[in-house]
This record gives sequence, structure tokens and C-alpha cells, in this order.
Amino acid sequence: MDGWEERDGALVRELEFPSFADAIAFVNRLAELAERENHHPDVDIRYRRVTVRWTTHSEGGITDRDRELAERTTELAPSR
Amino acid sequence: MDGWEERDGALVRELEFPSFADAIAFVNRLAELAERENHHPDVDIRYRRVTVRWTTHSEGGITDRDRELAERTTELAPSR
Repeated sequence: MDGWEERDGALVRELEFPSFADAIAFVNRLAELAERENHHPDVDIRYRRVTVRWTTHSEGGITDRDRELAERTTELAPSR
Repeated sequence: MDGWEERDGALVRELEFPSFADAIAFVNRLAELAERENHHPDVDIRYRRVTVRWTTHSEGGITDRDRELAERTTELAPSR
């Protein structure tokens, strides 16, 4: 998938934003998506960089749902 | 410091919240503090659990400022 890599059984992507405030705004959009879909990614915030990991623990790895939500995650980061 | 441990040159604490939404609300309060103080912790979100790491990269470790902001971080998590 474009921009995402598979690492340790998860779809992983690091996104960089113009500012910390932009990074946090993205995390809020992502959190809304996660709640709506009842599927929650791991999120690491490092100042202006946010790493997102989608995996399905109950399935022991990446599912189609993770791929779909990874694509939708990319759409939440307009600068990318 | 109460509830915080020193690990790899950072003050680290994992906070657990009743829900993912509560965890995200905490991250937003923490982000406001970070912006106001212009000092930004590393933040890892794992569903209802949030790990916060305060360190000062330019000083190569923990400073008094990190200790102060760690204490104020605890105050942002009212359930603790």
C-alpha cells in the first residue's frame, strides 16, 4: 500500500506535519475515525511526526479492515 | 517522583483511562500544556493507555523543567 510498510505484523506509516498543533489536529481526526469504526490504531507522537500502526490483535496481524483504515488515515493528513 | 520512573534518560509514566475518548481528551490537555510551555513530550497512545516521556534532548537527559512538567502532567489526569 502506497506510503505504508508492513512491520512486525502491522501496517505502519510515519506522517510529518508543519507543526505540533497540526500533528495533534490529525490525531484528533484519526481518533474520531477510530471511535466511529471501533478499531483503534497505535499512535506515537514525536513533536511534528506521528507514527500510526494498524493491526488486528485478535487475528494476529493485518486484515483487510486494517488496509482500509490505513487508506482512510492517509486521507486525514491533507498535506500528504 | 511519585508515579514516574526514569528510563533511558527520560521521565516515563503510563496512564490508564476509562475509555479511548478519555485518553484522547487527556492527550489534548497535555498538548495544550506542551504548546504553552514550548516543551513537547513523547506520547504513545495504546487504546486506553497513554505513555508520556519527558526529556530534554538538547541537555541529553532529564532537567528540572521535565520534572515540573511531569508533575503538571499528572494533574491533567484527574482519575489518577
